[in-house]
Amino acid sequence: MIRGKNCIGSQLSAKGNKTYKTFNPQLNIENEHEFTEATQEEINQAANLATQAFEVFKSTSGAKKADFLNAIADEILALDDELIKTYCSETGLPEGRAKGERGRTVFQLRTFADLVSEGSWVEATIDTAKPDREPMPKIDIRKMLTALGPVVVFGASNFPLAYSTAGGDTAAALAAGCPVIVKSHPMHAGTGELVASAIIKAAKKTGMPEGVFSNINSSGIEVGQWLVKHPQVKAVGFTGSIKGGRALYDLASQREEPIPVFAEMGSINPVVILPQALKNRNETLAKTYAGSITLGTGQFCTNPGLLLGIKGDELDEFISNLSDEIIKIDPSCMLHPNILNAYSKNKEVALSQSGLKVVANYDENVQHNYAKQTVTQVEGKVFLENTTLHQEVFGPYSIVVACDNAEELQQVISKLEGQLTGTIIAENNELNSYNNIISALQNRVGRLIFNGVPTGVEVCPSMVHGGPYPASTDSRFTAVGIDSIKRWVRPLSYQNWPNELLPDELKNENPLNISRFVDNHETTNKI
Amino acid sequence: MIRGKNCIGSQLSAKGNKTYKTFNPQLNIENEHEFTEATQEEINQAANLATQAFEVFKSTSGAKKADFLNAIADEILALDDELIKTYCSETGLPEGRAKGERGRTVFQLRTFADLVSEGSWVEATIDTAKPDREPMPKIDIRKMLTALGPVVVFGASNFPLAYSTAGGDTAAALAAGCPVIVKSHPMHAGTGELVASAIIKAAKKTGMPEGVFSNINSSGIEVGQWLVKHPQVKAVGFTGSIKGGRALYDLASQREEPIPVFAEMGSINPVVILPQALKNRNETLAKTYAGSITLGTGQFCTNPGLLLGIKGDELDEFISNLSDEIIKIDPSCMLHPNILNAYSKNKEVALSQSGLKVVANYDENVQHNYAKQTVTQVEGKVFLENTTLHQEVFGPYSIVVACDNAEELQQVISKLEGQLTGTIIAENNELNSYNNIISALQNRVGRLIFNGVPTGVEVCPSMVHGGPYPASTDSRFTAVGIDSIKRWVRPLSYQNWPNELLPDELKNENPLNISRFVDNHETTNKI
Repeated sequence: MIRGKNCIGSQLSAKGNKTYKTFNPQLNIENEHEFTEATQEEINQAANLATQAFEVFKSTSGAKKADFLNAIADEILALDDELIKTYCSETGLPEGRAKGERGRTVFQLRTFADLVSEGSWVEATIDTAKPDREPMPKIDIRKMLTALGPVVVFGASNFPLAYSTAGGDTAAALAAGCPVIVKSHPMHAGTGELVASAIIKAAKKTGMPEGVFSNINSSGIEVGQWLVKHPQVKAVGFTGSIKGGRALYDLASQREEPIPVFAEMGSINPVVILPQALKNRNETLAKTYAGSITLGTGQFCTNPGLLLGIKGDELDEFISNLSDEIIKIDPSCMLHPNILNAYSKNKEVALSQSGLKVVANYDENVQHNYAKQTVTQVEGKVFLENTTLHQEVFGPYSIVVACDNAEELQQVISKLEGQLTGTIIAENNELNSYNNIISALQNRVGRLIFNGVPTGVEVCPSMVHGGPYPASTDSRFTAVGIDSIKRWVRPLSYQNWPNELLPDELKNENPLNISRFVDNHETTNKI
Repeated sequence: MIRGKNCIGSQLSAKGNKTYKTFNPQLNIENEHEFTEATQEEINQAANLATQAFEVFKSTSGAKKADFLNAIADEILALDDELIKTYCSETGLPEGRAKGERGRTVFQLRTFADLVSEGSWVEATIDTAKPDREPMPKIDIRKMLTALGPVVVFGASNFPLAYSTAGGDTAAALAAGCPVIVKSHPMHAGTGELVASAIIKAAKKTGMPEGVFSNINSSGIEVGQWLVKHPQVKAVGFTGSIKGGRALYDLASQREEPIPVFAEMGSINPVVILPQALKNRNETLAKTYAGSITLGTGQFCTNPGLLLGIKGDELDEFISNLSDEIIKIDPSCMLHPNILNAYSKNKEVALSQSGLKVVANYDENVQHNYAKQTVTQVEGKVFLENTTLHQEVFGPYSIVVACDNAEELQQVISKLEGQLTGTIIAENNELNSYNNIISALQNRVGRLIFNGVPTGVEVCPSMVHGGPYPASTDSRFTAVGIDSIKRWVRPLSYQNWPNELLPDELKNENPLNISRFVDNHETTNKI
C-alpha cells in the first residue's frame, strides 16, 4: 500500500510540508497518492543510519548479501499486480513493458547475488613474503576490493524498475557492501515506494543492519543537491539528462572531499550505414530503423538519433523508405507531459536550424501525451558547422546526415561528443575500405555494434553501458553488467596482517574457495 | 648531453624566452644548464602529435609495447654515470638512493613490459551468441580494456626517477597504449631531460609513432594548467602536494569534457601503537620509528607523521626513547631550498598551536639546506579540536598524540582525512580488544600495515598506493603496481562484430593465448 512517505531506514517518515502527486499520461490525470518531500533533517537521519549500517554491511559475507539481494527480488515479485498497475499508471507504458522491466530488474538482482555468493569478484591478490630476498626481505601483502561507503542513487525517469529504486545502480552498490539512499524519481514515486518497501522487507527478513537502505521523496532539485553534498555520502549513481548529471558531477567535484559520480547521460548513438549495405538491404534497414527510432516512444538512452550515410541514390532511397515506414507506426504515449514538452521544444529548436529538411513528420491528431515521430535530413557540411544539431532530442526523432564522401563522414564522427553506442551497418566485403571510420567511431563510444540496432542493452559481463563524456561522467566504468560493481569499491591492502584478522577472502586457507591471484598466478589453492 | 630544451615528440624545441636553472642543495649553488620553458604553441604541437600517435599506439600489440618499455629501461641504464650525477646534483640525495631509485624505475618498466607482453590484463570478456534463447535471441558481445587517449604526467619532486619522467605513471600509461606528455618537474629538469632522451631513443629503436612521448619544461604553474585544460588530453597523473593536486583536479573537472585526474597527494600516515606492544618493545619501536621518520629526510609520502597511543607510563617512556633516538640521527639534505623553506614554515605553524609540546628538536648547526628533525606531543582532546595539527609537515617531523583511552583514539582516527597508509603496532593477543580502532582505520586508508613502518612501497600486484581523499583524488585506483594501468583505460564492447575485425584479444581463435572470461568461465581455450 502506498503511503506517500519517505523510508528513513525501515521507518516511514513525512516531516515535510511540501507534497506532490504522480501523473497518469494515458488518462491525462493526476494519480491519487500524495507524496511528502523529504526534509534536510530526514536526509541527515538517512545518512547517519547509512554510515552506521556501513560499519556492519562493509564486511557482511557474500552469502548473506546474496540472501538479501535474492530476497529483494522475491519481494518485488510478491508485489505482483499492485506494482504493475502502479508502474503503468505512472508511466503510460504498457503492461508488457512493465513485466519485462520487472523481469530485468529481478534478473539483475539475482545476477549480483550469484556474483557475491561466489565471491571471486573482489579480485583477491596475494604476494607472499620472501624473507630471503636480497637486498631486502619481501613483506607479505594482500589486497581486495572493499566498499566505498554510503551511495546515493538517483532513479531514472525512463526505467522505473530496472534503473531506479532497486535497479542496476542499487543492486551493484548493495552487492559491493555499500548502504544505498535512493532519491526517488518524482514521476514514479509510487512505483518507487512499493519497491522500497520490498527492499525494507527483504532487509528485515535477512537480518541486514538498519539504514542499509533509505528511500527519499522529492519533486525538486534541492533534495538531490543536499544528498550529493552530504559529507557522509561517498559516491553517487545517476541516470538521466546531461544537464542533471553534470550538475551533480559539479557539486560532487566541488566538495571539500570530492566523491565519484557515475552519471549515465545523453547519447544520440550514431549509426553509420555504408553504401553496399544500403544497396543490398535498403528496405529492410529502413523498416528496422523505423522500429528502433520509435521503440518505447524513443525514450531510450540508446535510441538511434543520428544516421550517417554517403550521398547517392541509395541514401535518397533509404531516406524515402525510412520516412514511409516511420509514418506507418502508431504514435505512443510519453512518460509524462513534461517529457513530451521537452521533446516538442527540443524538436522545435532542431527544426529551426537552417539547412535542416524535414523528411517525415507524423501529422495526424493524437491522444494527449502521445509523441509524433519525426525524421530530418541535413548535409554533412551543415551538421559539422552547427553543434546544436548534435544535441539529443529525447523521443522518436532522428536526423539523417548525408556526407559528401568517406572523409566527411569520418570528420562528422570525430566531431561528435562521446556516445554510449556506435553502429556500423555494412557488408563484410566493404569494411576494409572504411577503417578510418571504424577507428574514429571506436574513440567516441562505449559499445560498437555491427549490423544491428543500438536499442536493447543485454545484461551480461561483456556489456559496456557508458562511454566517453557526456555518455557518462567516467568512461572507465559501465552502468550495466557485473563489472558495474567496480564503481562502488576501492582496493585495500593488508601488509603483514595476522591471518586470523584478514577478511576470509585473503586468509591462507581460502575458506571461501575463491579464485585468487597468488604470487602472479590465478588459483583457488590454499597458501 | 643536457640541452635544456623541450622534447616535442622526437624534436628538441625551445621557442620560449623564459629560462630557469636547477639547484644543487648540497653545494648550495645553481647547476649550470639553462632550461627553456615551453610555450603554448609547443604544447599544442605535443598534444597534436600525441593525438596522431594515439591512432596507431592504441592498437599497437602488447609484444611491441613490451619492446618499447624494455628499450626505455635499457636506454635509462645506458645513461649510466651522467644520469646518476645529474640526479644527485639536482636533489642532494646520495648516489645509493639514485641507483636504488633507478633500479626501481627499470623494474617498473620491465614489470609493465611483462604484463602487456603476456596480454591477459585487458580483461577480455566474451558472451557468445545464443540464437535459440527465448523470448529473444542473445547476440554476441565481447569487451576488453582500451586506452583512454593522450595522458599528461606531472613529475614528482621527491622521486626524480621512479615517479617522474619514466616513472610509474608514464610506464603504466604507455603500457595501456596512451601517448604520454610529461610536465617535467623543474627541480630536476636535467634528470628529466636525460630520461626523456632515453624514451625518445627507445621509441625510435622500436618503431613507435612520432608523438608517443613528449617532455615539457616549466618552472611555473601556467604550463601545467594549459596541459590539463587541453581538449586533446584525456587523463592526468600527478604526484605531489594536496594544493597542487587539487588545483589540477578542479581544472580537469571544470572542463567542458571533464577528464580523470589521478593525483597521489599528501598523507600523515597514522601509526597506532597499542599498550602491550609499547610495554614489550618500547626501545626497539622508538629506534625503528626514529629511523622511519628521518628516512630520506622525511621526504616520503608514506612518512609516519602521526603516532597515536594511549596515555600511560609506557607512552611517556616511548616518547622519551623516540626523542633520544631521533636526536642521535645526523640531519640530511632536503631536495631544494624551497622544500626546506616549506618544511620550516609548516613546522612553525604546527609549533605555534596551543597545547603542542616539543619533545625533540635537533638544535645544532647544520649545513645549508639540511633539515632539523622534530618530534612534538599533544593530548588527544587538543588534536581533535585543532585540524591544523592534522596537516602534513613534509619533512622529518612527527607528532605523538596521547589519547585518554581507546574511545578517544578511535575518535581521532575517525576525524582524520583519508590516508595512504595506517599502521597498527600491537601484540597479537591484544588485537581483539581494539576491533573498533582497526575498523575505523580501515575506512581512512589505502594500505593497512601490521607491526611495520609505512615507509617503503613494494612494487607488486597487491600494493595499494592511494586511498580516500586527500591521499588520492580517486580511491578506486592505485598509483603503484600492475593495477595502476587501470587508471588509463576504459572498457569497450563489440557487439556482433566480425571476427576478423576484432582485436586479437577477442578473436575466436585466441591467437594471443590469453586468459579470458568466456560465457562466465575463465579460460585460455579457443571458441
